[in-house]
Amino acid sequence: MSGGSVVLLSGGLDSATTLALAVREAPPAHALTVRYGQRHRIEVERAAEIARFLGAALHRTVDLDLTFLSGSALTDRSIPVPTGRPEAELATGVPVTYVPARNTVFLSLALAWAESLGAGSLWIGANAVDYSGYPDCRPPFLEAFAAVACAGTRRGTAGGGFEVRAPLLHRTKGEIVRLAVDLGVPLGRTVSCYQPEPSGQPCGGCDACLLRAKGFREAGIADPALAVGN
Amino acid sequence: MSGGSVVLLSGGLDSATTLALAVREAPPAHALTVRYGQRHRIEVERAAEIARFLGAALHRTVDLDLTFLSGSALTDRSIPVPTGRPEAELATGVPVTYVPARNTVFLSLALAWAESLGAGSLWIGANAVDYSGYPDCRPPFLEAFAAVACAGTRRGTAGGGFEVRAPLLHRTKGEIVRLAVDLGVPLGRTVSCYQPEPSGQPCGGCDACLLRAKGFREAGIADPALAVGN
Repeated sequence: MSGGSVVLLSGGLDSATTLALAVREAPPAHALTVRYGQRHRIEVERAAEIARFLGAALHRTVDLDLTFLSGSALTDRSIPVPTGRPEAELATGVPVTYVPARNTVFLSLALAWAESLGAGSLWIGANAVDYSGYPDCRPPFLEAFAAVACAGTRRGTAGGGFEVRAPLLHRTKGEIVRLAVDLGVPLGRTVSCYQPEPSGQPCGGCDACLLRAKGFREAGIADPALAVGN
Repeated sequence: MSGGSVVLLSGGLDSATTLALAVREAPPAHALTVRYGQRHRIEVERAAEIARFLGAALHRTVDLDLTFLSGSALTDRSIPVPTGRPEAELATGVPVTYVPARNTVFLSLALAWAESLGAGSLWIGANAVDYSGYPDCRPPFLEAFAAVACAGTRRGTAGGGFEVRAPLLHRTKGEIVRLAVDLGVPLGRTVSCYQPEPSGQPCGGCDACLLRAKGFREAGIADPALAVGN
């Protein structure tokens, strides 16, 4: 696909690793962050820093307040983020941190920007191995979205095409950590936690923190984001 | 589909007519308007008025600034809206008023809100007869989006399903005007023009004005929006 890529960048481990891959494989890589009312706004600041560090050609933050969507612990402050769940439970069911249709909305924005830029490749850090509870992180969804991109745009209907790339889809968290290290991702600046301190300090107990810890454990390295004074 | 509908409502003739149909066929109907930086902001005010008048259960306006997308006359002030085009030309090619992936973005937001509300039906005033230039108003796109809705949501993957309804898809503008009259749509308050005066007064020359005029001509009635002092 010609014209480079648009990469969804939340500021977490997976999306930062995905950006590092896109910078290498589909340059110029344009990073897109959505400030949607998530609890973890520090992510957005870190995303800008990570985009610069990894060599994104552009980084854009779009404001889209999704807090009117009820039922998700990420956008509805009245629903607590679960902590301390057993590892076996993490991969079952749709978690309460699911935001309705979030990746559809985010990929749509990536698509709009990509068409505007002349880029044919949309990258997302979706993962279907360790945390398969999110319906919008699974292969059938990503394939369906690629069909929408081709059917619903000027570029797509003119035969230019779009592809949706999810290079982490079938990797374990441990593999992702090792890949991130190889690619020079500034791991200490990534924020995976769903409810970090304003400083970026992770809570340590939410599903995202537990999965991240599992990844570093599997990779056999210490998480630099947990270093004192990071 | 249970749980009612979400209807994309721009404030124009087609979306208002679509809302009137949804209020009748898929209640409760929830109207969604996006303030995306379009030239025609009066539409957004009229949308709220029309939603109340037609009996929408709720009306929500979402702010999403799309003016960073280049290449569209609707969001890029440096590109003039074409006026006075011959009727035969209107149905050919992708017009410069095409906003990249706009209906994908809008349907995504409708989907997110619908899932949050428990509504299974997404309604859009797309039309593929008189103005087939927009790729995101065509049947293949709408079918592809329905597949995304089912694959990428909790409701969809649980078997609850979503449908995308575009009841005006195969109607001429004249048929739409007649249908709107039958349904009691407040036609004089709808704004179709791409660049109206702040008062809502249409320019009379853009593609949207020309098609609207064609519709009223075919239906054999006067457009109340053109009445002096409306």
